[in-house]
Amino acid sequence: MKVEIITIGDEILFGQTVDTNSAWLAKKLNEIGMEIARITSIADTREAILEALDQTKGRAAAVLMTGGLGPTSDDITKPTLCEFFNTTLEMNHDVLGRIEAFFDKVKRPMLDVNRKQAELPRDADMLINVRGTAQGMWFEKEDQVFISMPGVPYEMRSIMRDGGLDRLKSRFNPSTIVHRTVLTQGIGESFLAEIVADWEQKIHDTEGLSLAYLPSPGLVKVRVTGRGGDRASMEAKVDAFAAELKTLVPKHVFGDDEEKLEEVVGELLKNRNMTLSTAESCTGGAIAQMLTSVPGSSSYFLGSVVSYSNEVKQNMLGVSEQDLQNHGAVSKEVVEAMAAGIQSRTGSDYALATSGIAGPDGGSEEKPVGTVWIAVAGPKTLKSKQFSFGTGRKRNIRKSALTALNWLRKEIIEADFD
Amino acid sequence: MKVEIITIGDEILFGQTVDTNSAWLAKKLNEIGMEIARITSIADTREAILEALDQTKGRAAAVLMTGGLGPTSDDITKPTLCEFFNTTLEMNHDVLGRIEAFFDKVKRPMLDVNRKQAELPRDADMLINVRGTAQGMWFEKEDQVFISMPGVPYEMRSIMRDGGLDRLKSRFNPSTIVHRTVLTQGIGESFLAEIVADWEQKIHDTEGLSLAYLPSPGLVKVRVTGRGGDRASMEAKVDAFAAELKTLVPKHVFGDDEEKLEEVVGELLKNRNMTLSTAESCTGGAIAQMLTSVPGSSSYFLGSVVSYSNEVKQNMLGVSEQDLQNHGAVSKEVVEAMAAGIQSRTGSDYALATSGIAGPDGGSEEKPVGTVWIAVAGPKTLKSKQFSFGTGRKRNIRKSALTALNWLRKEIIEADFD
Repeated sequence: MKVEIITIGDEILFGQTVDTNSAWLAKKLNEIGMEIARITSIADTREAILEALDQTKGRAAAVLMTGGLGPTSDDITKPTLCEFFNTTLEMNHDVLGRIEAFFDKVKRPMLDVNRKQAELPRDADMLINVRGTAQGMWFEKEDQVFISMPGVPYEMRSIMRDGGLDRLKSRFNPSTIVHRTVLTQGIGESFLAEIVADWEQKIHDTEGLSLAYLPSPGLVKVRVTGRGGDRASMEAKVDAFAAELKTLVPKHVFGDDEEKLEEVVGELLKNRNMTLSTAESCTGGAIAQMLTSVPGSSSYFLGSVVSYSNEVKQNMLGVSEQDLQNHGAVSKEVVEAMAAGIQSRTGSDYALATSGIAGPDGGSEEKPVGTVWIAVAGPKTLKSKQFSFGTGRKRNIRKSALTALNWLRKEIIEADFD
Repeated sequence: MKVEIITIGDEILFGQTVDTNSAWLAKKLNEIGMEIARITSIADTREAILEALDQTKGRAAAVLMTGGLGPTSDDITKPTLCEFFNTTLEMNHDVLGRIEAFFDKVKRPMLDVNRKQAELPRDADMLINVRGTAQGMWFEKEDQVFISMPGVPYEMRSIMRDGGLDRLKSRFNPSTIVHRTVLTQGIGESFLAEIVADWEQKIHDTEGLSLAYLPSPGLVKVRVTGRGGDRASMEAKVDAFAAELKTLVPKHVFGDDEEKLEEVVGELLKNRNMTLSTAESCTGGAIAQMLTSVPGSSSYFLGSVVSYSNEVKQNMLGVSEQDLQNHGAVSKEVVEAMAAGIQSRTGSDYALATSGIAGPDGGSEEKPVGTVWIAVAGPKTLKSKQFSFGTGRKRNIRKSALTALNWLRKEIIEADFD
C-alpha cells in the first residue's frame, strides 16, 4: 500500500515556501497504516503535472496532491486535472452556495475569482473545505486514487481531517505500521548510539523492526518502527523497546512521539498545582513563547520578564548594579539574581533564567559566543550552570531554551523524592 | 539548466522531519541563476536511491542529494553511491585528520562510527564540512553533476556556502533568473489581487515575467519572476514592477524579498536611535522572541513583560485592579495601561502591548476566541484597536504579533511627518 505526495507550485521549487504539508500528511497517513513512498515537488505547469501523475502509475495506490488551487492560481491545475482524468469543469451549485455562505460568515464581499472556484471537474467527488474556498477533489482512475487539495496548510488539514483520511482508510484497509519516537535532550547522536548499542542490535535482530536517529539543534529523536502482523502485538513489541530505551538514558529522555518539551513541563507543573515564571536575557522570550504556545498554559505559567537591557535587569528583576559591574551580565551571580527576582516578584513556585551571548557579536576571549548561564529556582533550591552552545544565533537560542526546560523537568521530578 | 534535489531518509517520508533543506538550497541556487525543476524525497534504501538517481538522466544537469550520511545511518547511502558511480570506499586520511581535529576542538572523544565517516568514495571530490563529520561529495557521471551532503541543515548549508555553490556556478555558468518578492501584511490574497488587477495584467503581457501570490497566516508575499536576457535589464524590469506594487498598497507593504517584519522594524528604530519594549499577554513573548531573533537587536529592544496572569499585569505593569474588574483583561483600558506601563518602566520610546483570547478555550459570546486588543504607544501617542483573528491558537498568536509589528512600523514612519 504505497502512497505518493505531489506538491504543485513554484513557491516550493523557488524555496519561498517550506513544504510542511508533506510532513503533516505523512504523519496522518502513517497513523492509519499507509506509508509514503515518495514525495515529489513540481512546477505549476501542464507538462510537469501530467508527467508527475503519469509516473505514479503502477507505483502508487493513492496519490495526494497539494497546491495549485488558490483563487489566483488555479487556471492551470484544474484544467490539467480535467485533461488527465478525461472530464470537464462545470459550476457546482452546492459548492457555490457554501462559498457564498463562507464569505457571508467572514463578512467580506465575494469576488469573481472566488465564484470561479466553484467551477469543478464533473467526475470528481468533493472533499468539502470548511475553512476556505478551494475544495478538495477525489478522483479514481484505473485502480488508483488521486486527491487534489489546496496548498494552504490550515485548509488542507481540515479537508483531510473532515473526511479525506476516513475515506482513504475505508478504501484501502491498510496493513499495520507502528512508530514510537523517544525524545532526548542534551546528548549527541554518536554518544547516544554508543550507549544504546546493545539495544540497537536487538532491534536489528527482530523481524519487522527498524530504527532511526533524528537529530535537530538540542534534541535527538530516536524512532522505532514496526511493520506487519497484527497491530496489537506489533505495538507491544515496539512499546517494549521504547520503554527499555528510557531506562538506558533516563536523564535525557523527556517524552514520546509528538510531545514537546514545553508540553511535558506544563503537564508536570499542572499535575502538582505549581507555577512557573521566566527571566530571559539571551533567549529573548523564546522560553515564554514556547510555554505559551501550549493551550491552557495560563494555569501554570504566570509570566516573564525579557530583560534585554541591564536597566530592565535592575529595575524589573532587582539585579544589583554591583553584580552587573563586577561579574558582567553573563555570570552566575546575575543569572541567579534574575531567577530569584522573577520568582519573588511573580510568586511562582519555579523560575528559569538565562543570560548568555547568542551572537554573532558580543563574544570575548573569556566569554565566547555561545556562553550561556542558566538558573533554575525551585521552592527550596537555586541552581545555576554555565553551558557552551557554539556559534549560530538561532541554534544558541533554541539550545538554551531546550536545555533550560529539560533541566526544569528534572528538578520538578527530583523534588518529588525530597 | 535544470537542477533536481533528492532528499534521502525515512524521517521526511514518515513526517517526522520537515524538509527545510530543499527550500534553502532552492533559494541559494536561484540566486546564482539555477532553477530547481523537481524535488524528490525517497527512502534510505539501495533500490530507492538507485531508481531516483537513474530517473534524473537526461532531465537534470545537476542533482543535489541531502541525507543518509549521519554517523548512525550511512551504511546504505555510501555503498549505494559507490555502486552507482562505479567506485569503492577507502580511508581518506586528510578527512580523518579533520575529523580528529574536530573532536579535539569540541573536547569530545572520537567514536568508531565517526572514524568510519572518513571512509569515502575514491572517485568523489570532497566538499569539506567544517561543522561536522559527514563530508560533502562531488561526483560526475556522463555530463551530470551529483552532490551528496549530510541532512543536518547547519552542516549542509556550510558545505554549500564554503565551496559547493561556487563550484556549481563556475561549472555551469547559468542563465539569468531574477525574483523580487514584495511582502504585505493585513490584506487577504483575493482582495489584493482585485486591487492590483491592472498591474498584474501588465506583468502577464511582458515577455519573460511571471507572478505568484504566496499566502501564510497574517502575510501575503507577492513574487515577480523574470527569466532570460541579461541580468541588468531583467533586474530593472522586475524592480520597476515591484516598485509600482508598493505604490498600490503602501500601508500593507512592509518589505522586500527575505526581509522579516521584525528586521524592518528594528532598522527603523536603529536609524532613529529609538527604543522599544513590549508587554505581551496573548502573544506570550512571541513578539519579543521575533525581535530578539535579529542580531544586534539589543541596541533598540529593551525588554518585555509577558504578563500572563492578572497579578503580573498589576504588579509589574501597573494595570489597575479596577480596570481588570470593570473591563476584563481583554479590553481597551487594560491593553493601553499595559503599553503605558512597560513604556514608563523601561523608558522606551515605543511600546507594544497585546491582550486577547488565543484559544482554544476562554472565549465568550461577547469576546469570542480570536478577539485581540493591540496597543501602540509612541513618544506622543497611545492608540489601541480591537481585532478578530478567528480560531487556531498558533495562527492567532502569529497574526497578533505580525499585526502589532506592522502597526508599529506605520506609526514610526508617520511620526517622521509630525
